[in-house]
Amino acid sequence: MPNGYHEPWKDPFLNPPSFEKTKSYARLKELATQAPDLSRAGFLTQERIASLFSQGANLLLLYGFERVNQEILGELQALADERRVVEQMHALYAGRPINFIEGYESECRAVLHPALRDVFQLGLVSDVSAKVLVEAELQKLRTFFETLPSQFETILFIGIGGSQLGPHALAEALVPYHLPNRSVRYVANVDPDDIHEALKGLDCKKTLVAVISKSGTTLETSTNEAWARAYFEKAGLNPREHFVAVTAPKTPMDDPTKYRAIFHMFDFVGGRFSSTSVVGGILISFLAGVNCFFELLDGANQMDRLSITGDMRDNLPLLLALLGVWNRNFLKYPTTAIIPYSRFLHRFPAHLQQCDMESNGKGINRMGERVPYSTGPIIWGEPGTNAQHSFFQLLHQGTDVVPVEFIGFKEASCKKDFLFQETYSQEKLLCNMFAQAIALATGKMHENPNKSFLGNRPSTIILGTKLDPRTLGSLLSLYEHKVVFQGFLWGINSFDQEGVQLGKVLADELLQIKKYRRERKEESHLSPVGRRLFDLLDDFSAAQGIVPRTKPSGEK
Amino acid sequence: MPNGYHEPWKDPFLNPPSFEKTKSYARLKELATQAPDLSRAGFLTQERIASLFSQGANLLLLYGFERVNQEILGELQALADERRVVEQMHALYAGRPINFIEGYESECRAVLHPALRDVFQLGLVSDVSAKVLVEAELQKLRTFFETLPSQFETILFIGIGGSQLGPHALAEALVPYHLPNRSVRYVANVDPDDIHEALKGLDCKKTLVAVISKSGTTLETSTNEAWARAYFEKAGLNPREHFVAVTAPKTPMDDPTKYRAIFHMFDFVGGRFSSTSVVGGILISFLAGVNCFFELLDGANQMDRLSITGDMRDNLPLLLALLGVWNRNFLKYPTTAIIPYSRFLHRFPAHLQQCDMESNGKGINRMGERVPYSTGPIIWGEPGTNAQHSFFQLLHQGTDVVPVEFIGFKEASCKKDFLFQETYSQEKLLCNMFAQAIALATGKMHENPNKSFLGNRPSTIILGTKLDPRTLGSLLSLYEHKVVFQGFLWGINSFDQEGVQLGKVLADELLQIKKYRRERKEESHLSPVGRRLFDLLDDFSAAQGIVPRTKPSGEK
Repeated sequence: MPNGYHEPWKDPFLNPPSFEKTKSYARLKELATQAPDLSRAGFLTQERIASLFSQGANLLLLYGFERVNQEILGELQALADERRVVEQMHALYAGRPINFIEGYESECRAVLHPALRDVFQLGLVSDVSAKVLVEAELQKLRTFFETLPSQFETILFIGIGGSQLGPHALAEALVPYHLPNRSVRYVANVDPDDIHEALKGLDCKKTLVAVISKSGTTLETSTNEAWARAYFEKAGLNPREHFVAVTAPKTPMDDPTKYRAIFHMFDFVGGRFSSTSVVGGILISFLAGVNCFFELLDGANQMDRLSITGDMRDNLPLLLALLGVWNRNFLKYPTTAIIPYSRFLHRFPAHLQQCDMESNGKGINRMGERVPYSTGPIIWGEPGTNAQHSFFQLLHQGTDVVPVEFIGFKEASCKKDFLFQETYSQEKLLCNMFAQAIALATGKMHENPNKSFLGNRPSTIILGTKLDPRTLGSLLSLYEHKVVFQGFLWGINSFDQEGVQLGKVLADELLQIKKYRRERKEESHLSPVGRRLFDLLDDFSAAQGIVPRTKPSGEK
Repeated sequence: MPNGYHEPWKDPFLNPPSFEKTKSYARLKELATQAPDLSRAGFLTQERIASLFSQGANLLLLYGFERVNQEILGELQALADERRVVEQMHALYAGRPINFIEGYESECRAVLHPALRDVFQLGLVSDVSAKVLVEAELQKLRTFFETLPSQFETILFIGIGGSQLGPHALAEALVPYHLPNRSVRYVANVDPDDIHEALKGLDCKKTLVAVISKSGTTLETSTNEAWARAYFEKAGLNPREHFVAVTAPKTPMDDPTKYRAIFHMFDFVGGRFSSTSVVGGILISFLAGVNCFFELLDGANQMDRLSITGDMRDNLPLLLALLGVWNRNFLKYPTTAIIPYSRFLHRFPAHLQQCDMESNGKGINRMGERVPYSTGPIIWGEPGTNAQHSFFQLLHQGTDVVPVEFIGFKEASCKKDFLFQETYSQEKLLCNMFAQAIALATGKMHENPNKSFLGNRPSTIILGTKLDPRTLGSLLSLYEHKVVFQGFLWGINSFDQEGVQLGKVLADELLQIKKYRRERKEESHLSPVGRRLFDLLDDFSAAQGIVPRTKPSGEK
């Protein structure tokens, strides 16, 4: 162990009173019974809006639409203090093992995704070895693109989950920054239709294939890579000239005989936090250039710098995390909707859904005890104004309350706009977003109960000037740290994902059935339920085959 | 009024005891306290799986993974009977006004989206006038495409919400059925970036533009249409040669001088139920041919026929609706995840999210009284297996239980498959889906609490042989009727959307501020909160402009 190291769970900083035993928890529970009603006449004033905001790292966060007051905010800060979450964040930056469950076998690793972008100004992260590794990969990335032949116009990006959702969301957000003649196709699912579509009409000669798997053995990715290799070979090409790997050192994919280049992921960065690693780097750099990727890193790093300050008013991620905990644990709202008012952020909610729910969808704390409180909420969302014409009916008049996080920008990403009925489209977009926040909060009663809005439905508004690479990086980091802070508050380990294992094991058993049936082997020891499921589907399909089809009366 | 008609709310069929006052409600509440535990040893047997399924209209529905037993199922049927929901469905098919709130001004209309596909065999819908209108539009559609010049290769589809999500989801589901040289671009959002992207590199000469707005005045759609018209004119083209309208009769868009053709929507079909109208018809027919669209209608009609049978075991939509109500109102699960194991269904959850949440996200019943129970749940989801690598961690080990509706197919849509590690990709896909249902239900305890799965998390599996147009139509109808039945069970009006009005009014007021500021008019009478929001954003952006940007250390 490095000098001065000790087991992290012996550190009093990492063993504060558990969430539900803090003084502030009890106090907040009481305050929740008398939480401010946003719909009360005269409550939502311009003074309130102008007194409840924070800004920094390219973003402005407005929280006057949340059901808080100064007393509640004070207690939330006290909760953060009691739970020593900023000290835990310092420990994270110091490279201390944060990913662990005490007393049980666990990954027990450092968590250093902020090191991925700690390449500006004075360093934040004190773990030098991690930084050296990161810098080396970034240099490799720069060199790779400086020497990449100009023939490559398309990148086929093969990866799933943490190796796809984040990079995809970021690449979509940066469409206006893409270089001419560069395009991307994604393959994630093991669904054969997924890769079939991606390969359709692909000009292999002009295609770079990036294969992303930290373990080097992800079932979906290995399957799709093998399929793609066969396809390139059939086209008379040598896959090694086209395929690059992003994987951890020493995995089956870490084999230079098979790839044009290999980039490394490290065990101190989890998949869902790897968007600013070479995982995202290879995609963003291919599509928009290496400098664009560095701007993104810079923006993320700017937000990282705010995450180690103790006062939540200066620490935007902590503020967002505390507001979320207030809504989740004290006001008891089980979900959070994330609604970006930008078409380029259309996959951002799906990435945050993963980042948040895979991190904090946990039932035990770091001591291995089942927690008596709710942890990670369900995160979901679609872009506005589209969502206003879809599920916003429920947000306004449904029987459940859904806290909303709105994300909007003063300017559009592309420069064109259009004056129609005396206003511009970007104005219409932003006015709609603000109007929704006001409508949800204030409501409006009407003599017709069907036209009445109860209001008192909270939201936070996150604003930027423009969705440029730096602002995007800041936004990403804001949410990454929100997730980490909530994990610290709840005392859970946000950095493993044991919950995905059982399904994998069972899927393997069901695949055995398929193999055994093909080989006519004895299968009775394999999952009876699984076997019956296959039988039912086979019977259904067989029966369907002989049912005469109805002919539409109008068909020729 | 037509012969024999009377006010619907005077009809005892439409005034059964309210949801919470039925005998079965009380009984189900009691049964919920002792609901079966799916994780109990020996509970989830192959016999159970094989005894709890229903099939019909191209689909097989497995509900052995739900927390039900014969007693609970019997009470759910009793609830449906007490609430007279099948009789309500008959009233719907008869064209009786179903869309109303008693005693208050309301839309008070018939709801006849099943008439859109009642063009096969003996008719289901007895409202002859509606059927005549539908047949005329379908004939118009057929003629339009028979005579459409071959120059058109792309359709620019301008519509939002009910005029976009459904058609988009269906068109994506049918990608393998698309004709060669046909493509689509969508514009929904008022975000200027949305249309900017859609117009980028568009060959206007080869483009048909479909503008969809029932009211003919939807802000987003009118704005984007005006922008697109200007763009076509700038390209030297006459928009009338390229633009077609889908709108209700007599709206501002119902103007033959402006469009190549006009198709009509009718007030008996709500936007979110209009996918099988000409709204979806124009898109599907352009991309995949009119006959493909008719096959879709046929599949929907097949499921419609099941929706009027009284026994839930034969009535798949009713069965799905009752299982949903069991989970929502008695087991108290606030959300439902819809997870299709098919890449082509990637937008289907977003469409169902709208269809369900806009219909049943209501707080008052048909008598205008606030309901004392939960109505429409939050609907969300992403395709599997992708989702397994994202939020499934929370589904397995999170503190909340999320009922899942899995959707899968025996065969892939495209014909290609690939053998890797002794199994095919489609087998891997399906095995994963089945494995998830089993894992969620049974769980598995482990000496390491972090590797333990509590199980007892319910799901339903919906299976088809293949995602062909008929199966897709059946799937769509299954969900449309699920929503309608749940509305009938809860006694709410699923067919209006008053909840979206307040936001529109407030957005208009905020847009006034923007106009007034440009014109330097006195604005103090306009929303103080809105004005302050603009000021805060302007101040933030102005301050941001003068902050010196960090230069990345590695940048050249």
